[in-house]
Amino acid sequence: MSLLRKTLQSSLSSLKQVRHVLAAPKKLSLEEFDGPCIKTDIPGPKSQELLRELTALTTAHEVQFFCNYEESKGNYLVDVDGNIFLDIYMQISSLPLGYNHPALLKVLNDPANLSTLVNRPALGNLPPADFPQRVQNSLMAVAPKGLTNVKTMACGSCSNENAYKAIFMWYMTKQRGGAPPSPEELETCMFNKSPGAPDLTLMSFTGAFHGRTLGCLATTHSKAIHKLDIPSMDWPIAPFPQLKYPLEEHEAENRAEERRCLDQVHALFREYNSRGRPVCGVVVEPVQAEGGDNHASPQFFRELRAIAREYDAAFLVDEVQTGVGVTGSWWAHDLWGLDDPPDVVTFAKKMLGGGYFHTEEFRATSGYRIFNTWLGEPSKLALCEAVVKTVQEENLLENVRQAGAVLLDGLKHLQTKYPTQLENARGLGTFIAIDCVGGEAQRNKIVADLKRKGIQSGGCGERTIRCRPALIFQPHHAEMVLNAVDEVLAEQA
Amino acid sequence: MSLLRKTLQSSLSSLKQVRHVLAAPKKLSLEEFDGPCIKTDIPGPKSQELLRELTALTTAHEVQFFCNYEESKGNYLVDVDGNIFLDIYMQISSLPLGYNHPALLKVLNDPANLSTLVNRPALGNLPPADFPQRVQNSLMAVAPKGLTNVKTMACGSCSNENAYKAIFMWYMTKQRGGAPPSPEELETCMFNKSPGAPDLTLMSFTGAFHGRTLGCLATTHSKAIHKLDIPSMDWPIAPFPQLKYPLEEHEAENRAEERRCLDQVHALFREYNSRGRPVCGVVVEPVQAEGGDNHASPQFFRELRAIAREYDAAFLVDEVQTGVGVTGSWWAHDLWGLDDPPDVVTFAKKMLGGGYFHTEEFRATSGYRIFNTWLGEPSKLALCEAVVKTVQEENLLENVRQAGAVLLDGLKHLQTKYPTQLENARGLGTFIAIDCVGGEAQRNKIVADLKRKGIQSGGCGERTIRCRPALIFQPHHAEMVLNAVDEVLAEQA
Repeated sequence: MSLLRKTLQSSLSSLKQVRHVLAAPKKLSLEEFDGPCIKTDIPGPKSQELLRELTALTTAHEVQFFCNYEESKGNYLVDVDGNIFLDIYMQISSLPLGYNHPALLKVLNDPANLSTLVNRPALGNLPPADFPQRVQNSLMAVAPKGLTNVKTMACGSCSNENAYKAIFMWYMTKQRGGAPPSPEELETCMFNKSPGAPDLTLMSFTGAFHGRTLGCLATTHSKAIHKLDIPSMDWPIAPFPQLKYPLEEHEAENRAEERRCLDQVHALFREYNSRGRPVCGVVVEPVQAEGGDNHASPQFFRELRAIAREYDAAFLVDEVQTGVGVTGSWWAHDLWGLDDPPDVVTFAKKMLGGGYFHTEEFRATSGYRIFNTWLGEPSKLALCEAVVKTVQEENLLENVRQAGAVLLDGLKHLQTKYPTQLENARGLGTFIAIDCVGGEAQRNKIVADLKRKGIQSGGCGERTIRCRPALIFQPHHAEMVLNAVDEVLAEQA
Repeated sequence: MSLLRKTLQSSLSSLKQVRHVLAAPKKLSLEEFDGPCIKTDIPGPKSQELLRELTALTTAHEVQFFCNYEESKGNYLVDVDGNIFLDIYMQISSLPLGYNHPALLKVLNDPANLSTLVNRPALGNLPPADFPQRVQNSLMAVAPKGLTNVKTMACGSCSNENAYKAIFMWYMTKQRGGAPPSPEELETCMFNKSPGAPDLTLMSFTGAFHGRTLGCLATTHSKAIHKLDIPSMDWPIAPFPQLKYPLEEHEAENRAEERRCLDQVHALFREYNSRGRPVCGVVVEPVQAEGGDNHASPQFFRELRAIAREYDAAFLVDEVQTGVGVTGSWWAHDLWGLDDPPDVVTFAKKMLGGGYFHTEEFRATSGYRIFNTWLGEPSKLALCEAVVKTVQEENLLENVRQAGAVLLDGLKHLQTKYPTQLENARGLGTFIAIDCVGGEAQRNKIVADLKRKGIQSGGCGERTIRCRPALIFQPHHAEMVLNAVDEVLAEQA
């Protein structure tokens, strides 16, 4: 049998061999392919040729294959070799509505938006006329409860870097009790020295990922390869709970584990504060994504919020990956039942631009303290506005909950069927993951085998497969994924 | 006389009272206004109303006025109140071809580019088919001599942050002599501790500006307000030469000042290296822009490059503001006559996206070390490609040299005419600045008065006015600027 016929047959078999009954697609405003279709090795010959070209200009170790974005549609990503993937990773969780969504194409086809795209302003100095309205219709339309202010930024790392700075400034402004900075502070800061550049710290958690610029990287602890060789700062790092799944079957021991971690948070506050290195804030992800999809309970986060309050530290929730409806709520922290909202919430990825929401207290007290040339881009707000409208009009949060339930139930079924291969299926909405019993090598093989069957997924942590589909991912897509996983595991068993 | 008539008259008078003969416009492919036209106070009533709306959602201390980007053309920025400014600041030096340039509109009107705009990829994992060719036609078409590699990033700060990381990784890779990292390094880096997160340093200069994220900020020393309250790192900071202008009239004392600074560079290398805090690299701007348009001689930079080489440190040239033709060369460091090129050159602003060029030695040795979700954006490369082509086809570097000569000669003439108000006119190409004898308050008044006459300029340092026009700024525009400056000074005298 030729390689082509073999791969074709293998990719189509997951559709023929239907183990799950495909639910009727919901009425969503998108055209799609009927299913994945793999014609070549992955990467295919054209991708391999382009990779050679690219590698002459830049390192490209991370390239999976080259894409034909014009032909990609909805949940389906098309590569340059004509392979069609059902994409449940969506550009590292950054496309909210899949490929070529009509609502986004409409924004770009509107001649009124052309000047926004071609004349990128210094947004802090010279905003376009429609900027206040755009902010209102996009970011503020989905602002977390209690957070009345927003700053726009270009990406996730910039969002966290600037949120950290806002926290340090807020802390020192409180310390001064309204007095202006001293001449000594103004002089010493210019040379990176205390008291102007004070020994302040920010608490983060083991396993966290908050970005890769030097400030963010000091709070990132997911993989050594991200941090190795880069100088960093002595900031407190608390243990993130290592829970047992399913959560509901291990309540007592998980509670004890969360208690242990929260005790450490207390201890670190006391230790660093008493060492003259005050902890000004705590940064946490609602689910540690890059770190391996590690969950904690709503109670853990409520208590963490209360501890931050107790020590007069800011509580920063990093929703760069968990935000924008993927958990079935717009923000993952909506699910915690907080009485006292976070002080700062950062976003990027599926919001299509970055930034942070914050309470009134965290407004900069003077100009040019939180600033850069571009401060994001108005065209991203125009796209974000279309995303917000589409999610509301098409009730996509409900779609996420339905499709997520099908996917998670199916994965739980598969881990029962293949207990020596899969465990710990877990998730919120379509933000779903499962661990590979055989560790990293097995995980990588499953992800690669899924790709060969036309399912584009991703890894995280050491041995986890993560699903990060778009908000238009539907139950029948979930069933295609489950069939492909079933087949891959049957072949590997 | 009504306010409206008064402001109208004042704004037009600079055109009537022609002190410089206007040169015939060159044949550039752009439509423009005949000159500035100011109808209201600045900010005008519509801008003031929008500012109130925006301030409810976010701090907006830095807003000058709101713009009508659709109506803006070439060198002219139009605001929401219908005022027309001749713009010599160009969105903090970030628009290469002015407003609504036909070459850029063409890129966005091309349906083939639509999918690039709407499907922003995770560029490191899944680049579009045309990515290698785009990189070749845009970034590599203007790569600095000797720099064969490029990494794309989203903005200037990200470019510098990642260039710093590349330098630290390069340094440690050399230290290991090809051996893999030790288990101890891999463990300690996860907790921000040495040896995995080693005590490495990067040298910068007083007065420098390299960005505002925490790594960049440790090398930025231009204004206290940027740095106050933010924890930083003990990295060496060398004095940047404080030269006397015009440079050619103070050669001996300027040489001595540069000598003094280079001696300090040597001393800092020895001090930090002997303290076990190795200096892995030196970062420098060809002209310190934000810091006050501080120049140094080609010889200074050649010697600095040689010193970095002597101590086995990387030499990083930050061309975020000086790049893209504004000095009359594509890169400002082209003017230094280096035999030994820089190791790394960063860019952003007028390149329309960020990134850094580097030599072969600075390629990451494995995947995911220099990485983030977006790694810039392919649509910015499409625009950059159009910029590169337009600059070449329209010979805009020659245009910059001609317009810059008119502007600089005129400012030198004006500082002779108003010696108690202006001094130190200096520049390369149209990257031109002049100091206000009366200090910051006078500088701010001149910038504000120029705005009222329809000239949009900017400040830098403590008492400097900076000109950062687009590459399409022509001799007749320069003469309008000179006439307006002349008038403002005559009124203030």
